[in-house]
Amino acid sequence: MSAPRTDVIAIGNAIVDVMAPCEDGLIDALGLVRGGMTLIDTERAHALYDAMGPAREISGGSAANTLAGLAALGARCAFIGQVAEDQLGEVFAHDIRAGGIEFATPARPGDPPTARCLIFVTSDGQRTMNTFLGASQFLPPEALDEAAIRDAKILYLEGYLWDPEEPRAAMRRAIAAAKEAGRKVAFTLSDAFVIERHGADFRAMIETGEIDILFANHVELAALTGHDDFDRGLAELAPKVPLLVVTRSEKGAVAMAGGERFAVPAEPVEQVVDTTGAGDLFAAGFLFGHVRGRAVQDCLTLGAVCAAEVISHYGARPEADLPALVAARFS
Amino acid sequence: MSAPRTDVIAIGNAIVDVMAPCEDGLIDALGLVRGGMTLIDTERAHALYDAMGPAREISGGSAANTLAGLAALGARCAFIGQVAEDQLGEVFAHDIRAGGIEFATPARPGDPPTARCLIFVTSDGQRTMNTFLGASQFLPPEALDEAAIRDAKILYLEGYLWDPEEPRAAMRRAIAAAKEAGRKVAFTLSDAFVIERHGADFRAMIETGEIDILFANHVELAALTGHDDFDRGLAELAPKVPLLVVTRSEKGAVAMAGGERFAVPAEPVEQVVDTTGAGDLFAAGFLFGHVRGRAVQDCLTLGAVCAAEVISHYGARPEADLPALVAARFS
Repeated sequence: MSAPRTDVIAIGNAIVDVMAPCEDGLIDALGLVRGGMTLIDTERAHALYDAMGPAREISGGSAANTLAGLAALGARCAFIGQVAEDQLGEVFAHDIRAGGIEFATPARPGDPPTARCLIFVTSDGQRTMNTFLGASQFLPPEALDEAAIRDAKILYLEGYLWDPEEPRAAMRRAIAAAKEAGRKVAFTLSDAFVIERHGADFRAMIETGEIDILFANHVELAALTGHDDFDRGLAELAPKVPLLVVTRSEKGAVAMAGGERFAVPAEPVEQVVDTTGAGDLFAAGFLFGHVRGRAVQDCLTLGAVCAAEVISHYGARPEADLPALVAARFS
Repeated sequence: MSAPRTDVIAIGNAIVDVMAPCEDGLIDALGLVRGGMTLIDTERAHALYDAMGPAREISGGSAANTLAGLAALGARCAFIGQVAEDQLGEVFAHDIRAGGIEFATPARPGDPPTARCLIFVTSDGQRTMNTFLGASQFLPPEALDEAAIRDAKILYLEGYLWDPEEPRAAMRRAIAAAKEAGRKVAFTLSDAFVIERHGADFRAMIETGEIDILFANHVELAALTGHDDFDRGLAELAPKVPLLVVTRSEKGAVAMAGGERFAVPAEPVEQVVDTTGAGDLFAAGFLFGHVRGRAVQDCLTLGAVCAAEVISHYGARPEADLPALVAARFS
């Protein structure tokens, strides 16, 4: 087995975020799931877009955001995801490639259009996401570049993409390819509602040892384990995965590895503008440390630094000079 | 003549800004006109987009930005401009309507796509704009709603749109309609290079009294009058227009009306992030004061407050609560 060429290859939603600030009352008036991610169809997408204020478009997608952070830190990354042959597809492809990430999945002609996520950001920085999956849900297993997967240290998968059938099949095949090549599989649970729908799958994958690194937040940990008590959930899940990383919003994050517990507080942030991408960028910092062979404690700090950067502005992709922030934090 | 239903109706480029921070060296390496606006074709648009970092998309267009400011302040506004039947056209239409502005120009089917402006923002906040006019240049004179023009206190036109033939014809027809109805015509010179190409047209329109309110910055004033000396240029131009408003970047702005000179310093800004839209939002504040019957001095202050807001963040549309900023400034 030759040395892997890539640090992290990810499969995820290829999605453009459409984000606008919104008054608190609008979340209830529109019947939105505050702080959550809801899948929407074309009709609902039109209705919500009509109700939204003037917006900005910034490329997103959970795993793609994580790669954007990893690449900004200096990791070699590749992305697999499905856009349509349209303007938003061009925007997504441009942004990910401009970030230095390999992206070779061919655009899909015809309908549906490229995925978009309508994000309502309230004054507390909380984001409420409404995802129109569009082309993203049609990522076919044949689109996988298995050679590229075998050639990456880590295969990173987002739980959000477990909903649609074709990408789920593609991800299962990708896991098999990575495992055969002796690579690690990292998985992010993404959302409590995704766990409601697919918890049985996720638990089975954990039990059978398919997941080497598991990312979750405290709400997802509770949804997966059925324990509202954080420590109890952690104690139950930790023995089943080699490396478990759980973020806790303003309480920082915890990692469990080899029976040992590591923790980090949240980095101070002047003003929380938009929490979109906080978990994604935490994963970016953590994985960067991991592929560079840093200690778990340092990986947590790297995650916290990257998460703090992304919540201090609109959009789920890093804007500041991440290596400089990291250097300052470790100096 | 009945009382006008609308405060300001504008004709302008219907354009989506694609903006990214950029290193100073890239401006020269790409052969861009630093701080200016250059028209680009499809091929150049692709080349520049490929060279651009990860970007964000925010609706723009000079006159449309001005209306966004006016509407945010509480003015009744309408916009005329040409988008294509595509995703960026939907984005533009959504954003302008979500800002409370009437926009009824039908989208144009087929090629070319909706206009976009590739904006490179250097670390000093300076923006270098590269405009692919796309559908915007095909605004046909027949698309004008002359009843709506007669029904607005002010017809506002952007010089940028003087380049393409069809919109130029449309704007000439709009001026005639506004004048017949006894309305005022406001015009922004937009850019020194536009004046190089169309200065003769602009000077003729000024001489024949077609323009009641003229907006320019100090560079455009010099280009139009041929005088690098600010006071000399001002003295020559002022007698030819009832109301002349000239912005001077960090030196504030000057207005000339009825032989009298008014001036305002620039409002303090914590950090200049992106100067895109500074002139557009100055015009918004000024015109808002004007349609509300405020004194010229107050109109200048309103312009300065709005310009300061827009340069403190990315994008040329206002984000903060403009009425609150104005109320605070006048309290």
